[in-house]
Amino acid sequence: MTKKLIIRVGLKDGITDPEGANVKKSLELLGFDNIVGVKTSKIFEITVEELDEEKAREEAENMCKKLLANPVIHSYEINIE
Amino acid sequence: MTKKLIIRVGLKDGITDPEGANVKKSLELLGFDNIVGVKTSKIFEITVEELDEEKAREEAENMCKKLLANPVIHSYEINIE
Repeated sequence: MTKKLIIRVGLKDGITDPEGANVKKSLELLGFDNIVGVKTSKIFEITVEELDEEKAREEAENMCKKLLANPVIHSYEINIE
Repeated sequence: MTKKLIIRVGLKDGITDPEGANVKKSLELLGFDNIVGVKTSKIFEITVEELDEEKAREEAENMCKKLLANPVIHSYEINIE
């Protein structure tokens, strides 16, 4: 049986989001004139062979620490399905 | 008052996800040996000055069509908060 680790990695509050700023600018150039702000983040949907939800969560946590997130600038959120 | 448009843009089923494949390879090199697959997607959290939920949804739909998603390869999902 498999579990799906849904990991959302985004920038911490206060960290500049250049991609979000560019999307905002582009949308404004396209005529969207009521935009207050744009934040971007990334989702990794990782399917693993694992039965135990707690172990899956621990594994996701390790993946973030070792590869997916940079603790200086990123925050992350883990959901298991 | 503002609404938050949460737009998730991912690759359609059957479209190769090179970033996901690379993440899978890297995780395996780091010792995670039970990975079945990795899919990546992107979240845009766009705050707009808008009261009406229906109008906000329509605006998000237009943003996807005009900028955020490429209909050939991407599918998207819109949530309004």
